[in-house]
Amino acid sequence: MHYQLYYWPGIQGRGEFVRLALEAGRAKYADVARQSQRSGGGVPALLRGMDDASLKRPPFAPPYLRAGRVLIAQTANILQFLGPRLKLAPADEAGRLWAHQLQLTVSDFVGEAHDVHHPIAVSLYYRQQKAEARRRARHFTGERIPKFLGYFERVLQANRRGRAYMIGNAPTYVDLSMFQIVAGLRYAFPRTMRRLEPDFPALVALHERVRELPNVAAYLASDRRIAFNEDGIFRHYPELDTSR
Amino acid sequence: MHYQLYYWPGIQGRGEFVRLALEAGRAKYADVARQSQRSGGGVPALLRGMDDASLKRPPFAPPYLRAGRVLIAQTANILQFLGPRLKLAPADEAGRLWAHQLQLTVSDFVGEAHDVHHPIAVSLYYRQQKAEARRRARHFTGERIPKFLGYFERVLQANRRGRAYMIGNAPTYVDLSMFQIVAGLRYAFPRTMRRLEPDFPALVALHERVRELPNVAAYLASDRRIAFNEDGIFRHYPELDTSR
Repeated sequence: MHYQLYYWPGIQGRGEFVRLALEAGRAKYADVARQSQRSGGGVPALLRGMDDASLKRPPFAPPYLRAGRVLIAQTANILQFLGPRLKLAPADEAGRLWAHQLQLTVSDFVGEAHDVHHPIAVSLYYRQQKAEARRRARHFTGERIPKFLGYFERVLQANRRGRAYMIGNAPTYVDLSMFQIVAGLRYAFPRTMRRLEPDFPALVALHERVRELPNVAAYLASDRRIAFNEDGIFRHYPELDTSR
Repeated sequence: MHYQLYYWPGIQGRGEFVRLALEAGRAKYADVARQSQRSGGGVPALLRGMDDASLKRPPFAPPYLRAGRVLIAQTANILQFLGPRLKLAPADEAGRLWAHQLQLTVSDFVGEAHDVHHPIAVSLYYRQQKAEARRRARHFTGERIPKFLGYFERVLQANRRGRAYMIGNAPTYVDLSMFQIVAGLRYAFPRTMRRLEPDFPALVALHERVRELPNVAAYLASDRRIAFNEDGIFRHYPELDTSR
């Protein structure tokens, strides 16, 4: 199967969770909006794929994935679809539900990480909601990061097959997402993470383990990996990296 | 199968999407935290089910569902699990992915509806973030409700099997969630909804159609249906029901 991923070309954002799975699973795929408009790519292709009035099952927002005749949106849903196909999900139904459950908790966390810099409206710039962002950030760094990372650490520690991965003893798309969350938080909130990381030793070790998986390492070293920046989900605004 | 649902006993909240499915599908279930503590219910039972250190696959937050030996959390994941078992989901894999994709978009919308009254932190009361809530509400009522309802209306209009339901020609859990969203928005934002509803005729008709399904109608008339209130997701604060 040859996949087409549709996501904003200048950011990691939510699409990165899918890119990591495609790369770790050595899938053949095109990152459509990063290809030239002349070859049918670019942002116009991304928008066309959502706005096309003839679509019976339109995506609400990027990322979305084309797999033959199937068009799938919602990050966690895409990963649920790709997981078994790329050997990045447990084999049994209960294991797959569990992987998806964890991924939906990742989605919740990513939504909160986004709203730290956009607490009022996505239609406004950060600078237009800076006062509210500062206030929200204190709660995010003080309460929410510890709560979510504490939960993921607990899951990792409770994995009876060892603490190498979140589920069983082989990497799944959930581990890739854990890597991305630690990487994103370190970029956006370095002071907070320096303070918090000692509390989450298994998660920090997992980040390292995933980073060194050969397919992941090759991807991270390539120009396919977009650098973190202040248009994405994880943004480094020093004034929001408040640490008590 | 006899199910145990675990959710906060005093609110509809996210649990209501699951309650509606259990009721519409005539499932045998216990709403555990609404039962007496003497009989092993109440909020202590809800908290025990998450905090139990021996759990290998702990929920992050309510709602969660026990189905025999399986413990499942995350609203959309619970519905994905229940859908086929209660005959409230399409039969084919592509249809199920599509139903789940829509449900995840419902989850996104519900998250935004919550954050209207809690734009800064869940750990603060509404009255402690009222100024920010007012500002966020203007964007929610002016931009976000129209965007999400417009999308759901488009999906309904595009359903080639007729516009009676979101998918195919029989009700699924997604239709139940559409009912709940319209009902919740009418409760929380009556002025805004009076202004907007003419733009979403198919969705308004769907709300009515679902409300009259015999199992749903019986549930809504029973004392099992908790009334909307200001502890849930959809809260009526007149000062947030700003309509331009």
